[in-house]
Amino acid sequence: MGFYIIVYDIGDQGKRQRVVEILEKWGLRRIQRSAFVGYVQEGRAKDIAREIEMTIDLEKDVVHIVQIERKEWNRAIVVGTSKWSAGSPEGSVVLR
Amino acid sequence: MGFYIIVYDIGDQGKRQRVVEILEKWGLRRIQRSAFVGYVQEGRAKDIAREIEMTIDLEKDVVHIVQIERKEWNRAIVVGTSKWSAGSPEGSVVLR
Repeated sequence: MGFYIIVYDIGDQGKRQRVVEILEKWGLRRIQRSAFVGYVQEGRAKDIAREIEMTIDLEKDVVHIVQIERKEWNRAIVVGTSKWSAGSPEGSVVLR
Repeated sequence: MGFYIIVYDIGDQGKRQRVVEILEKWGLRRIQRSAFVGYVQEGRAKDIAREIEMTIDLEKDVVHIVQIERKEWNRAIVVGTSKWSAGSPEGSVVLR
């Protein structure tokens, strides 16, 4: 399993919603309007990328899929309030 | 020096622009509309967080400041086209 942060800029509302559904289907959790985090099985990140590739406008939109360490996410500094389920990572420094 | 990915949801255009200026001032590079990456001197991430804290609406907005490894960024999968200067990390898998 790898831990990932996935961030995206997608102009079209319909395409953006389909990418949200793809990421949620794969069990990732939303941390912001255009960012998700979560565990993905080894080698599956490319499958997610392929699905996204068939969904977005490859000239105008961009998605970054970055494998990081879970402990790096846990140490994140969070400024403000995340209104999504994932909320703030445990142990992170929260400035509010 | 630590390598960081910083992503944000900021509703107000004026506040969002000031955060962009803060991040650019600290030498971070924009990869998407609401995401930056780059090196930050040890211990300085909290200074950035403090400046952002004084800028955004702490109830409605959120900024995640995550220290990662440069090699993790270099291995990122990029789907689509990033129209910002930082563009795609060297060596990343680009699906376009």
